[in-house]
Amino acid sequence: MAVQLPPLPLLPPIAGIRLSTAVAGIKTQRADLVLMELAAGSQCAAVLTRNAFCAAPVTVVRQHLTTHQPRYLLINSGNANAGTGPAGYDDALTCCQTVAQLSGCQPQEVLPFSTGVIGQPLPTAKIQAALPTALAHLSPEGWAAAAQAIMTTDTGPKGFAVQEAEFTITGIAKGAGMIRPDMATLLAFLATDIALSAPLLHQCLTQAVDASFNRITVDGDTSTNDACVLIATGQRKLPLIDSVHHPLFAIVQSAVTQVCTQLAQTIVRDGEGATKLITISVEQGRSEAECVQVAYTVAHSPLVKTAFFASDANWGRILAAVGRCALPEFTLETVDIFLNEVCIVAHGGIAATYREAQGQQVMQQAEITIRILLGRGEHQAHILTCDLSYDYVRINAEYRT
Amino acid sequence: MAVQLPPLPLLPPIAGIRLSTAVAGIKTQRADLVLMELAAGSQCAAVLTRNAFCAAPVTVVRQHLTTHQPRYLLINSGNANAGTGPAGYDDALTCCQTVAQLSGCQPQEVLPFSTGVIGQPLPTAKIQAALPTALAHLSPEGWAAAAQAIMTTDTGPKGFAVQEAEFTITGIAKGAGMIRPDMATLLAFLATDIALSAPLLHQCLTQAVDASFNRITVDGDTSTNDACVLIATGQRKLPLIDSVHHPLFAIVQSAVTQVCTQLAQTIVRDGEGATKLITISVEQGRSEAECVQVAYTVAHSPLVKTAFFASDANWGRILAAVGRCALPEFTLETVDIFLNEVCIVAHGGIAATYREAQGQQVMQQAEITIRILLGRGEHQAHILTCDLSYDYVRINAEYRT
Repeated sequence: MAVQLPPLPLLPPIAGIRLSTAVAGIKTQRADLVLMELAAGSQCAAVLTRNAFCAAPVTVVRQHLTTHQPRYLLINSGNANAGTGPAGYDDALTCCQTVAQLSGCQPQEVLPFSTGVIGQPLPTAKIQAALPTALAHLSPEGWAAAAQAIMTTDTGPKGFAVQEAEFTITGIAKGAGMIRPDMATLLAFLATDIALSAPLLHQCLTQAVDASFNRITVDGDTSTNDACVLIATGQRKLPLIDSVHHPLFAIVQSAVTQVCTQLAQTIVRDGEGATKLITISVEQGRSEAECVQVAYTVAHSPLVKTAFFASDANWGRILAAVGRCALPEFTLETVDIFLNEVCIVAHGGIAATYREAQGQQVMQQAEITIRILLGRGEHQAHILTCDLSYDYVRINAEYRT
Repeated sequence: MAVQLPPLPLLPPIAGIRLSTAVAGIKTQRADLVLMELAAGSQCAAVLTRNAFCAAPVTVVRQHLTTHQPRYLLINSGNANAGTGPAGYDDALTCCQTVAQLSGCQPQEVLPFSTGVIGQPLPTAKIQAALPTALAHLSPEGWAAAAQAIMTTDTGPKGFAVQEAEFTITGIAKGAGMIRPDMATLLAFLATDIALSAPLLHQCLTQAVDASFNRITVDGDTSTNDACVLIATGQRKLPLIDSVHHPLFAIVQSAVTQVCTQLAQTIVRDGEGATKLITISVEQGRSEAECVQVAYTVAHSPLVKTAFFASDANWGRILAAVGRCALPEFTLETVDIFLNEVCIVAHGGIAATYREAQGQQVMQQAEITIRILLGRGEHQAHILTCDLSYDYVRINAEYRT
């Protein structure tokens, strides 16, 4: 199930990036391996999971990025290589070494990414066997196939691109469950053909991630493998953007944020079992942080999520979730809540104007906005989430079987 | 569904307490009203929800307890009188006034409790109409019928009693969903025939609640109506216990804790849709607080809960939940995890001795203990929870329809 998941748009090639996919047969016999080649001189920034139990490939990525700029990204689905201990770390390195041997680069110039089942050994032999084919078929046109190959429980591929006169940005992502990114999402890969300095590339990415992947949740579980990568190949041969005052910087920042936001929204649309896309907008807070806290508390409430699945305008459950946030000096009396345009709660109680039929009408829709006005400040934040359905339970009860 | 919910044990009467039930017809035509009469001179302590959006009756209970000792407790199921604004407050007071008029006590000597649907007006006329019958049928033997009448989505009544030579304690409780108490649970009523001073009665209750109702979770949603009441009627005519050094105090404290612990466990056994009772024991932490934090993070993970529903020994999901706790200076390397006696994780990776068949064998059982050894201190904590099944979604998607 998914909430109006858009078809994959045309993903324009990025000069300096070539991709290929291959069938390693990690979990099933489908394309499950992606190799991405970066032209020499490309800059790469990454935001990685903050889960203390990060997967082995995340550790390797962190180490390699401190000393080298990558020439290859190797991504597999079907196995997360997480919770696999020292052997998992060695497995991730082994894959990098094979890419290096076959391509003539250094192992530290290869970044490994894995997504799939946690806690099972990575079948490195299968991956190594598929690498010569992958290297032989690199193509600038490979983005759509790559978006397909990195999927796990996703019901459709996810990508978005922005084309401006001076540059293009293309991005792909995957993710449907274990979604509550903390400074990163499951897997997302973006590339642009413009040249940015390392600090500005990093700034671009972290600001975009903060406004997109860090504002979504499906089930509140932060993945062990979250990674979002932004590559600037510089192949447009425009002068390097090395200052925030450069006339193009704001445009690039905005475009990166737009791609990340679209990818993040697509991930929630494809949330495991999702039947509704829910925007939770918390306004009039004392700080952005407390707005985010309220929004996530509502978004993670199983009672709110099941009510949305049932198309039940159960504002009492929303109110109860807001109420257990334990904000300082917080009272009911200033809180108003809207479902789309319908005011359901005024001054902490059911709105005098509210009729059940109005709430019902909103709840029948596939995309709904909850606006929670705290009435105690001028800050706001919004996040995206989805409902909790039978299918979420089915998907996650059956996932390993 | 429920996990080996025990049948209601014999609930001995408490001298000084009389109860009755009546059919008010609030939601359906079943006994949904309980009146409890306390002998003059009874002491009463209460622990109430810390949800900022507490229900109207909770506000009334708080106010009445500051100035008066109660003579009557009036409890209704089917409607929570929560999120009902000033009208809800007036409704709760109206019910107290009617009890006062009919019985000849003061309205402030009546404590109202409600549980059921949030956000709908309390049908006070129905309750008022049933009160004369309730008053006419008060009996010391009414505990079992009361335990039945306060149920909402509970599949069975919940009660427990301890009889010592010097005193008896009888308790009843209800609750199956919206269970993540914060200094209180849904509704629990305990009474003893011994006499305790007000401060010691309160200490007894808060210590017992902290070790029982504050260590359980079904779905992480803190109710708007949580209330736990302990009454000491003093009808045994033993000397007042007014010091922690009184020889009986420790015995009373232990008995109250035992009753609360049994009631709390019964609530989790009857967790909405529960098929498994899961004890999460976190040990070797730097503080009890961090052990509780880790335990609740694991207990609230939808991925962990669905894995237990599927009898899937998915230790990777447990590890991932532990990992996102963001404890200071926390690393994977010191963590061991056991499923009952089976070591599944050692030093942060899959245990060398572990075989999938061992985990499977544990997971087939209805009652499972996860032991998480953090390897960084000497503190511990354990909580009780249950799995997340199709039926949880069904119950909460259908609740209002």
